[in-house]
Parts: sequence; C-alpha cells; structure tokens
Amino acid sequence: MKINNIDVSSYPHSEKVYMQGELYPEIKVGMRKVRQYPTVKIEEGKRVEYPNEDIYIYDTSGPYTDPNVSIDLYKGLPRHRESWIEKRGDTEILDSITSEYGRQRLADSSLDEIRFPVRHKPRRAAAGRNVTQMHYARQGVVTPEMEYAAIRENMDNEARGIKSHITPEFVRDEVAAGRAIIAANINHPEAEPMVIGSAFSVKLNTNIGNSALSSGIEEEISKAVWSCYWGGDTLMDLSTGDNIHETREWIIRNCPVPVGTVPIYQALEKVNGDVKKLTWEIYRDTLIEQAEQGVDYFTIHAGVLREHAELVGQRLTGCVSRGGSIMTQWCVLHQQESFLYTHFDEICEILNKYDVAVSLGDGMRPGSIHDANDRAQFLELEVLGELTEKAWKHDVQVIIEGPGHVPMNKIQENMDKQKRSCHEAPFYTLGPLTTDIAPAYDHITSAIGAAIIGNLGTAMICYVTPKEHLSLPTLGDVRDGVIAYKIAAHAADLAKGHPGAQVRDNALSKARFEFRWKDQFNLSLDPARAKQYYLESRRDAPDADDKFCTMCGPNFCAMRISQNISEECEKN
Amino acid sequence: MKINNIDVSSYPHSEKVYMQGELYPEIKVGMRKVRQYPTVKIEEGKRVEYPNEDIYIYDTSGPYTDPNVSIDLYKGLPRHRESWIEKRGDTEILDSITSEYGRQRLADSSLDEIRFPVRHKPRRAAAGRNVTQMHYARQGVVTPEMEYAAIRENMDNEARGIKSHITPEFVRDEVAAGRAIIAANINHPEAEPMVIGSAFSVKLNTNIGNSALSSGIEEEISKAVWSCYWGGDTLMDLSTGDNIHETREWIIRNCPVPVGTVPIYQALEKVNGDVKKLTWEIYRDTLIEQAEQGVDYFTIHAGVLREHAELVGQRLTGCVSRGGSIMTQWCVLHQQESFLYTHFDEICEILNKYDVAVSLGDGMRPGSIHDANDRAQFLELEVLGELTEKAWKHDVQVIIEGPGHVPMNKIQENMDKQKRSCHEAPFYTLGPLTTDIAPAYDHITSAIGAAIIGNLGTAMICYVTPKEHLSLPTLGDVRDGVIAYKIAAHAADLAKGHPGAQVRDNALSKARFEFRWKDQFNLSLDPARAKQYYLESRRDAPDADDKFCTMCGPNFCAMRISQNISEECEKN
Repeated sequence: MKINNIDVSSYPHSEKVYMQGELYPEIKVGMRKVRQYPTVKIEEGKRVEYPNEDIYIYDTSGPYTDPNVSIDLYKGLPRHRESWIEKRGDTEILDSITSEYGRQRLADSSLDEIRFPVRHKPRRAAAGRNVTQMHYARQGVVTPEMEYAAIRENMDNEARGIKSHITPEFVRDEVAAGRAIIAANINHPEAEPMVIGSAFSVKLNTNIGNSALSSGIEEEISKAVWSCYWGGDTLMDLSTGDNIHETREWIIRNCPVPVGTVPIYQALEKVNGDVKKLTWEIYRDTLIEQAEQGVDYFTIHAGVLREHAELVGQRLTGCVSRGGSIMTQWCVLHQQESFLYTHFDEICEILNKYDVAVSLGDGMRPGSIHDANDRAQFLELEVLGELTEKAWKHDVQVIIEGPGHVPMNKIQENMDKQKRSCHEAPFYTLGPLTTDIAPAYDHITSAIGAAIIGNLGTAMICYVTPKEHLSLPTLGDVRDGVIAYKIAAHAADLAKGHPGAQVRDNALSKARFEFRWKDQFNLSLDPARAKQYYLESRRDAPDADDKFCTMCGPNFCAMRISQNISEECEKN
Repeated sequence: MKINNIDVSSYPHSEKVYMQGELYPEIKVGMRKVRQYPTVKIEEGKRVEYPNEDIYIYDTSGPYTDPNVSIDLYKGLPRHRESWIEKRGDTEILDSITSEYGRQRLADSSLDEIRFPVRHKPRRAAAGRNVTQMHYARQGVVTPEMEYAAIRENMDNEARGIKSHITPEFVRDEVAAGRAIIAANINHPEAEPMVIGSAFSVKLNTNIGNSALSSGIEEEISKAVWSCYWGGDTLMDLSTGDNIHETREWIIRNCPVPVGTVPIYQALEKVNGDVKKLTWEIYRDTLIEQAEQGVDYFTIHAGVLREHAELVGQRLTGCVSRGGSIMTQWCVLHQQESFLYTHFDEICEILNKYDVAVSLGDGMRPGSIHDANDRAQFLELEVLGELTEKAWKHDVQVIIEGPGHVPMNKIQENMDKQKRSCHEAPFYTLGPLTTDIAPAYDHITSAIGAAIIGNLGTAMICYVTPKEHLSLPTLGDVRDGVIAYKIAAHAADLAKGHPGAQVRDNALSKARFEFRWKDQFNLSLDPARAKQYYLESRRDAPDADDKFCTMCGPNFCAMRISQNISEECEKN
C-alpha cells in the first residue's frame, strides 16, 4: 500500500514482531524491530564485523505493516479485541443500532454506495453493568488491555536489563486512580490498546477530517493510515462536512489506534449549523450514534458555562475553540446553562455503557499569547475539575484538554493548575504555541511548547501542522506535524527518564559516529526523508557508505578525526 | 534583487524607517515599519474604519531593503561606521595588509578575476591603543555603537509607553562587565552594530560556507543576503574550500551583520589538511589576515587541552567539533599543549588591535544525548572560564560556545555551569538538540532546546538547518533554519519579558481575530509562505479577505462565532 509515494506497508530494514502476554497469553503486542548492520573494523589487515543489536520501536501502524495480515479496506482490520470483550461476559450485542439518526442513515438506500460494506452489530454493556477500563481497574482486575499497554510501554526493556516501573498492575493502578486512561470502546475491537498518563511515554494525537471545503472518504482513510504510519497514537476525526456518519464508520473499521470525535460538530450539522436549534436530545442521540460505531473518546465542552460568555468579549482573540464557541453562543441565545453541563451525569451513563472516555474540552483555551492563563481559561479549568470528579463517580475515564497559545514562562503554571484543579487526570494539550508570529510554522512554535509541557507531565500532545491558522493540512503537512510531535514527545520521554527511551538515540548516534548511514536513516523518525536529503548531495555515491559526513567534506570530518585520535591515543 | 524567487529588497506592506540617535545625532538606526490595514466595522448600517497602528520590527536586512540605497555587490555596502571610528582618533590606516598570506594572495594576479574589485586599506589600533568596545565601556565611554544597539533593542517602545531597562548607558555597563558584547571590527564598517547579551533580545547566528564538495562565491553572497533577509543577526562563514580569502572579502564587504569565522579551518587548508604541519605562526598569520579583512568574531577552540584527548575515546560520539577535533589531534600528534592555549595572550593582543571578539569554541560539545554534560564537556568549560578572564584583561570581548546535543532535563545545568564557570560571559549555543533520532528535522529538535536555553539566559543561538548531519543546506534550508530559530529566539524573548516583544504577537493575533488576513501575513516571520499556504486552499478567493478561517470552513469558524457572541452579549 502506497500513500504519497511512501510504501506504508513496511518500515525500512525492519520487521513486525509480536510480544506475548504472560497474564493473557492470547495477547500479541506488535512492535517494530529494526535490524542494524554490523560495525566493520580493519584489525591486523583483516576485516572484522561486530554485530549491532536489534532495536525495538513502539509501533502505531497496526496490521498495515504486517506482511502476514492481508489488508482490505472494504472489510476492515481484524477485530482482535473482540474475544477479550466477549470473555468478560458483561456486554450484549444489540440487534440494531439504537440511535435515531443512525437508523435513519441505515434506512437511506441512497447511501448504500458510500456505506462501509460490512455491518457489525453494536455491543453495549448488559443491563446494570459498567464496562470501562476504570471500572475494572477499581475492582482490582488487570484486563488484557492493561497488560497489552504495559508490554507496549516497555518494549524490550526486560531483555536489555532496563529497569521499569511499568507493570500490568501499575497500569491498572494508574487507571484506577484516574491518572491514566485506556481509551478502548468495546465497539472498536480493531484498535490496539495503549495507555495515556503522565507515568507513561508521551502520546500524540493527530486531527484529520473533512470540512465543507474539501476532502472525501478515501482521502480520509489514507490520512488515518498515514498518520498511524508516522507515529500518531490516537486520531481525532474532526469532519464537519457531508456524510460524517459514513466517513466515520470507514475510518474506525480501518483504524488501529483509538479514535476521538467532537460530537457537537455533528449535532450542529444535524440542525444545519443553527446553534439556536441545538438540543440535548439531538446531542444525546449523537453520542449514542457515535458510541455504537466505536468512537473511543469524545471531546465534550461541558466546562463552558453561561457565566463565562461575557469573558469572551474581554479577550484579544475571543473563543478559538469551535466547540467552546458553539456552546457559549448556545448559552447566550437561550439564556440558559449549557446542556452539556446540566446533563453531564446522563452523558456519563451513556459513556460507561460502551467505555467511551471523555476528553473534557477547553472551550476557553487561549488563542493568543495575550489571552494565555487568563480568567476565562482558569475558571473553566476549575469546572473541568468538578466534572472530572463527577465522571469518575461513573467510572468514566477522563482526560483534560489544554491550551493553546502560551508563552514559555506561563507553561508551568498551566500544568500545576491543571494537576491541582483536575486531581491529576491526564492533561492533553494542543501545543501550546509559544508565539503567535509564525503562521506556516506553527508545528514548530507548538512543538517547543509541547516538549516542555510533556516533560512537566502532560500525557498527550495534540499535533499542529504547518497549515494551522491558514488551511486544512495535506498529507505532507500531516507527516510534518506528526514528526514534529514525535520529536516533542520523545524529547519529553528522554527528559522524564521514560524506561528505555534513550536506546534508540544511543543506537542512532553510534551508527552516525561509525558512518553506518543506512542504520542512521532506518533508526530515524523519517527514514525516507533523511535518506533523501543525504542522497541529494551525494548523487555520485548512492550507496550511502561514505566514511565522512557530507556537511564538512572528506578532509574536515570531526567524527573521522575523532576516530583517528582514539587510535593515536591507543598507540601512545 | 531576487533570490530563490523572493524579492529580498523589500518586505510586504513595509517600509524602511530610521531612528536618530540622541547622544550621536549622526546615528540612523534602520528598522522595518509594517503598515496595517484598518479594522472595518458596520455600525448603524455604515462602514466605519478604525485604524491599526504601525508595527516596528527589528531589521537585520541592512541597506538591502532600503530603496534609497543603490546596491552594487561589486562595490560593497556603504561604510557608515567609518566616520565614527575615524573620530575616535585611536586607529591608523595601514599602507597594505600585514599578513604574509594576504600579501601572497594579493600578489597573485591569477586571482584578479575572483577578487573583490574595491581595495580598502586595513585599519589597526595606533601604537599602544586598544580599540575594543569593552575597552571604551570600561573607560565609561558610550560609543555610537552602544547607542545604536540600544535604540535597536527598544525599537518604538518609548513612543508606545513601554518601559525598558535598555539605555545606551546600560549597554555600556553590560559590555564593561563582560555580560554583553558588540562585535564590531573596525575593518567592517559596513555592519550595523548590535548587542549580544542575556539582558537583550536573543540573537541568532547562521552558518554559511562552501566545502570541498560544492558552492561558489556568488552563491555564498546570496546566502548571506538571504540569511539577513530572514532575520539572521550574525553570520559565520565556515568555508573550507578553495579561495576562502577572496570569498570572505566579498561576503564581508556586502554583509550588514557581524561576520564570524573559525580561523583554524583556513590555517589547516594552508597546510593541505595535514594537522601535523599546523603551527602557531601559520595560525597567527591567519588571525591577522582575517582581522584586517573585517571579521568581527573568531571562534577559537583554546579550551581543548592535551589532557582532554583521552576523554574523546570514552564518548559515544567522540569529538564532533571540527575545530576541537583538529586541535585534539594536534596535541596528540605533537605530544604538546595546544598552541591556542599557550599563545592565548598573544591572540588577545592581536584581537584588541582590531576589535575582534573571541567566541571560545566548545571543542568538546556533546554530539549525542549520551555524551551530554559529561566530564569532557564540563572540564573544557572550566578552561573557557579561565580564558575568559585572560581575554578580559586585554579588554577583548568574549562569548562562550555551548552544546550541542542535550536532553531537556540537562539544559538548566548547562546554563548554570556556564554562568558560574565563565563569569556571566554571554552564552552562544548550537541548539541544543533535544534528541538524536530526527535527522532531516534537526531544525526542530534543536529549536526546542534553543528556545529553552534562550529563556534561561543564553544570549545567542546558532541555527541548525533540516540538513544538519546529512548535507550542506540549500537556500531553502537556510530559510527553514532561520525561521525555526527566529521562533525560538522570539519565544524566549516573550518568556524573558523583553521590552516590547509582545507587540507583534498582539498585533498579529488581533489581525487574525478580525480576519485581516493580509496583516496576519505581513506581520508573520515568513509572509510569503503564510500567504502561499492560505491561497493554496482558496484559489477562488485570492484576495485573502474571507471572513472565516479556511481550517473550519465558513459555518464553523470559532472566531467568527466569538464575534457574534460578543455582539449578542452586548444586546442582552
């Protein structure tokens, strides 16, 4: 499978390997193993090869990079988690979807052409049951999802003798305490479980979606696969155009990572964009519609209250959250408190029937350096803390969305206030962008903030592409955005001391020092581009085995001279 | 003048304006004034325009963007600082250049073709005089250079009522204390003075240069102009190929910002790359040769000592500084202490005759996360502190080069140790890169580190392009590198609270909120690219006056909804 001229069905010089569970031997955790070339030395006139170890890399690409799995977008990915869910015996399979809107769409034969061809009946908690990972964790149960996530976090640390605090039981305890979530809707058994929490590696979310202006279904699936290939840990489908329902089905059935949405977008589409006509009933039906499709987490802007509306006008850039602005407008138009806030308990009762996590939206996130850490932002954060406790009463898993635009000197305060107000629920931030003056480069302005806040304890960072503020991202922009955020996340993992994080840096640097160019490329976040840049200046030596770096030329290579120095030192 | 399809003789909707000195009325500090469009509102059915203020931007492009200066690369830029230097009456004009090598090149008529056409006689301190800015500062003198730099730092702060600690006297005091430098060789009167110190805005250095593999003179001048256009504050000419001497002359005569070099590179060329043949005499002659051409600061790796050599072999990536590896090898081959260290007083006596600042090179900077903050790095830093004090005895201005590859959790320690060891001499770092695993994106891995260390007090950051580790940068890479570092520097200025830094962010964000797209582009770090990205998705509306953002489409624009909310709130 090729997307944008990149073969997304494999990584260079790598293979997909699986690590088995111990508590649950049926678990097979996919990871990417990079084979390295040997170090070659000339000793006493003879060529001697010293092997270099295999490097294991956290793999978000799912079955797409497993040659033993045949991919058929029209059938969807294997539903490997179905048997785990079935075994728990606390769910029922519904005869049909239960949302009003879902039924209408299903009955509309004009949609048959664009409908995902396989129909899976939705699953829901049996009467009186609660099927969230938090619920199980609080009962002391280690689920297969928890063991899966623990193995994934550790990769081959045990084999390398690297100590790690991360065990399946530790994952359970973090989930039970609300400090971590495993977003895993029982209707999305295709996804590979992963854990989001400050005690784990920093995750990155990507946004895709079609707006009224562009895009189509096939393109959206490509974007999802593309995002997972480069390393996106979760995927938000922010579509606002036609056929959202059908597009989402295609994406979820083919997506190996958790999928999130902002249900208010679709609810608003259902009333033709007329905020005044939005009702709790329409919203509620949308939640059920999406939960039964398998959405793993919902962004819900329930912290935007009626009393916050007047603060919007005091800001330089008002409200820059779509969901937040919609709800604020609703409150103002109806002169009523937000239905997301007043119905929050009912929302939680829906979510824990499918295990949809809630991502409490930051409707008042600052849209400029000027508005950072202002009253509107922090007032909302306190409401989010109140809602967190409410959600936890229903064993609903919670993450908290964060800014936005924040200068570096105000980032720590954001993190501190979030921890305190929201009782250590995982923080999930958009950047933050550390300056406003670089449209077209906001993947960089925000990667700076994301790395800093990741190091301070933010669990997941939402990517920003170069097109932020200007346009919808192309596939190339998605790649640039994901890589910028892989950098931020990994830099934070290194700084946090995440177990095993430095293995890859050390291996790549050793390869670099030894002029094993191919290994340097293969171990990098974007092997294709690294190789391309190298070859552009070395058209005469396309085998990438120069014993010098192209920056300094053959006579001035510091690393080559270093090697000579060491040889000289040994002689003396 | 067009480079890479960009007109580098102007900025969009901007004009070059000059601010006059008070102490020295002959000073005219160039800056860029961006004219904004008015905010248009419909009030009682009528269109009402509210003007938006002009925004002043620190301008590194020099006379190239002044339509009243006719640019002729074959004549060089106006020598505006010549009269200031002349007035001080402490220099003499030499009949001819005094370096051996410079004379040889001059006598070689085969070089006439590539030689810069205008010959300026070199200037040197009169016998017994010291002509450094530090020397004047310590005498209590505020020079025109100091007032120029102070005005530049403040831009239009006074007119806006923004308080600033930066006065000409403050600049003098910082230079006198060694906490700041003004790199301004008396033989580079074309350059516009600027100050490098932690109490001022963070500066960025760019590297250009031809290696044995590519590039030529005209291309190098283009790179210099290009770098200044995008915002490079200083320029290091790292050429290692043929005709370095002549290339440098072309660059300096046409460069409006301070130029730095690493003289050991050329010294090594003079002995055909044979480190063993390097001598103090050849190096000394090279210093004089370059000082008389007008190089403003020399990187000198005088902190690499013979005893450090054995530490190189203990590292994962050895020595990654070219200068450092050359000097280490020299020590090992000769079994002698580095001549840069043993002759450091003589070096200073040369430098203070021309006012060349010394950038004490970090020969042992870490080339990987693994080697960060190791013994080799910090031992050298202590030697740099010792050399700093020595240089200051000669009133030679000093900056200290820093790493390299450093994980985020070790950056603070770098800054603290540098301040302590080097007595608060300005720190000048290469990044640092916060992870090793992203070749092809090292402008990003390092912009993260640069922003953080800039906020902690680093005075100047050396840019890294996407091609770092892989290849020499193209013009496109230089642009990407400069913008990434303008972002890092500006993010640090905002976080440090540099006077007036936020004016541009506020203006751009206000423009964004009001859908004044053109102002948003014009105020951004890269107007051309911001506009290009916008237009790519709006081919039907090339006038950039949509009242919504292309990301969300017309029905979902949070900012448009915000404006409606404020209107609604006012009604209620």
